[in-house]
Amino acid sequence: MNRPERIENDTTALMRGIGEAAKAASRRLAIATPEEKNNALKAAAKALRAATPAILAANAKDVEAAKAAGRPASFVDRLLLNEKRVAGIAKGLEEIAELPDPIGTVLAEWTRPNGLKFQRVRVPLGTIGIIYESRPNVTADAGALSLKAGNASILRGGSESHHSSVAIHACLVEGLRAAGLPEAAIQLVPTTDREAVGAMLRGLDGAVDVIVPRGGKSLVQRVQEEARVPVFAHLEGICHTYVDKAANIDIALPIVVNAKMRRTGVCGATECLLIDKNAKSDFVAPLVKALLDEGCEVRGDAIVQKVDLRVKPASNEDFGKEFLEPIIAVKMVDGVDEAIDHIARYGSQHTDAIITESEETAERFLDRVDSAIVLVNASTQFADGGEFGFGGEIGIATGKMHARGPVGVEQLTSFKYKVRGNGQIRPK
Amino acid sequence: MNRPERIENDTTALMRGIGEAAKAASRRLAIATPEEKNNALKAAAKALRAATPAILAANAKDVEAAKAAGRPASFVDRLLLNEKRVAGIAKGLEEIAELPDPIGTVLAEWTRPNGLKFQRVRVPLGTIGIIYESRPNVTADAGALSLKAGNASILRGGSESHHSSVAIHACLVEGLRAAGLPEAAIQLVPTTDREAVGAMLRGLDGAVDVIVPRGGKSLVQRVQEEARVPVFAHLEGICHTYVDKAANIDIALPIVVNAKMRRTGVCGATECLLIDKNAKSDFVAPLVKALLDEGCEVRGDAIVQKVDLRVKPASNEDFGKEFLEPIIAVKMVDGVDEAIDHIARYGSQHTDAIITESEETAERFLDRVDSAIVLVNASTQFADGGEFGFGGEIGIATGKMHARGPVGVEQLTSFKYKVRGNGQIRPK
Repeated sequence: MNRPERIENDTTALMRGIGEAAKAASRRLAIATPEEKNNALKAAAKALRAATPAILAANAKDVEAAKAAGRPASFVDRLLLNEKRVAGIAKGLEEIAELPDPIGTVLAEWTRPNGLKFQRVRVPLGTIGIIYESRPNVTADAGALSLKAGNASILRGGSESHHSSVAIHACLVEGLRAAGLPEAAIQLVPTTDREAVGAMLRGLDGAVDVIVPRGGKSLVQRVQEEARVPVFAHLEGICHTYVDKAANIDIALPIVVNAKMRRTGVCGATECLLIDKNAKSDFVAPLVKALLDEGCEVRGDAIVQKVDLRVKPASNEDFGKEFLEPIIAVKMVDGVDEAIDHIARYGSQHTDAIITESEETAERFLDRVDSAIVLVNASTQFADGGEFGFGGEIGIATGKMHARGPVGVEQLTSFKYKVRGNGQIRPK
Repeated sequence: MNRPERIENDTTALMRGIGEAAKAASRRLAIATPEEKNNALKAAAKALRAATPAILAANAKDVEAAKAAGRPASFVDRLLLNEKRVAGIAKGLEEIAELPDPIGTVLAEWTRPNGLKFQRVRVPLGTIGIIYESRPNVTADAGALSLKAGNASILRGGSESHHSSVAIHACLVEGLRAAGLPEAAIQLVPTTDREAVGAMLRGLDGAVDVIVPRGGKSLVQRVQEEARVPVFAHLEGICHTYVDKAANIDIALPIVVNAKMRRTGVCGATECLLIDKNAKSDFVAPLVKALLDEGCEVRGDAIVQKVDLRVKPASNEDFGKEFLEPIIAVKMVDGVDEAIDHIARYGSQHTDAIITESEETAERFLDRVDSAIVLVNASTQFADGGEFGFGGEIGIATGKMHARGPVGVEQLTSFKYKVRGNGQIRPK
């Protein structure tokens, strides 16, 4: 630690080697059969189960250090593994093995008048760099999803979960070895030196095709600002639920409470409730009371404040804010168009919902809200690859390039054109 | 010119305004009907025909300046417009109007066990920034393709074609106006100040979603190095044609000559010929002689040099080189696997072809060559959106993110998820 320059040089060389190994492995993975990849995943699951005591011992070191460092209970809980959680990670690998193999799928095919036969065929992206924080299960999930899509992966976990990640990663490598695939198909960066992250963000001399950050806003922000390669991410999930005048209140009430309160710390949690001021019956009072009764702090505009003494006045900063806590901003709007405009101004293009029985209004909202996920009569907390049926996700993206919404196995692929002819030449 | 700081500030403010106008226009375009967009394209075509004299007069200024500056004849030819070329540009707009509208297409749909109905629906990307050099027709093609896909566009043409571009752009604006669409849907940067390009590459405060450079290698290189937003591009087209031992020489000969010599300056031109040394009959002599007889300079390895006195020795730099001239590098390889390895090492992931009658060898090549376009028994010069049936292209991309190969209307779109429920909440 007294020789930072030396350490940085070591890290640079180390990361270059990791990039080269990933690139070589990705060439092999691109032609791996579905069986080879699935065998690796199943063997890794088996290895994980067998190594449970070692994984828990490694995790205990991380947990102890986190407690000693005075980390909050929620942090320690994210970090903590037990037998059930390890079994869940192993089962997750087997579920990924059961997914259909995306590689080689013909996405489109057509024949031109000159007889040339065109196919657009799914191929792997190459190498995925995943930068994550304290959840050790990301090591297995991200490595496995990347592998299923035929990609090499470079995993850089947080220093707080390093012992746990090393133990889990050893099982993934055991699976790769058992299946005859290169061990470098899933690499864990062995240093917690922050410069390793910088090197990944610069792309390791073209070896990294995409970066997926998994963690809090400050991590995602750093990655988005510094990365010189594409990033699949969302900075914030500022999700809205709009209750239209044509809503069925019996449907609206449980959805709004679920959208905000099921889990308040997830990116699909509703942060702002918009209520149509043109509703004939009183929607405001029952909606606000239901939230308050669930223990949610309500910050409302003038109309909302009149409903209940417990309502606090909303400041302008409360709109467009990702609380990630049991707090919600509530605003009355003049119909669906004002709701759409509010979302365009304050939202984060993540997930937004409308509650209405009017098909016309629903379609207007679906067409005009420019978010990755737009829902009708359902909770925004469905913003999750598992709930989409993707069999897991590596994250949720709010950009419009390549992947959007939950990033599952299919989103970790690219395509190429296969063109078959019988002697065609192009006229002058 | 004596106050560069002042000029830069002016350009910065100008470009910020262009970005804001594009963003506002893109919101309107996202909900434009197919008819509105097609009416704009057809009205623009009409305006172009009517304005032919004005366009030719503007073009004459550009051509005169280019000649006075001593630009080569090939440059002047790219720049030159005549009645036929203007008619061709107008017809191109009408052809884009005839293409199927990509927006709103349901790419996938499924229902989950809880009754939630998912749709993945095509939406526009947002705003496309196009930076191009001397071809004035790009103004119309790029603006029209972007519009068809529901995107706003910001066009930055080369200073050499500025008068021509301004005249063509005026017709596009006339079309937009006639269709009731915002004029800012297609903007031409009115200054030739280079700082305007820098501002576009930084993304105009999030207003530019993707940059497409159209021009020579130095332009593409600058864009790829400086851009802070995604880029659809290819730096080089180092295309290979491999003649396998199982090739039919009667098919191979015309393909190889066409792949190299049809046009030597296009990105899909073959730059390197690989010949299987295991062929039973002599492929080398007829292939090399056919190229030489067409006026192509052949630079070959030791075996190739023995075929004809006109063959020059190939240096190591001749492999992996984009000649864009009637010059080809020729090498003997030990079968399809060495060809694949050579392409992996020296290619640019653009377009590569195999000539063979063996289906097994063809499939091996198709699967293992990691290029945007891989062909069997056809000329690499088919690397073109028009030849793919895309009805035009804005460029060819060799990256694996989002768009790959010819970038047509569909590749200028993104998607979103529409999820329809009837009261679903997510269990704890």
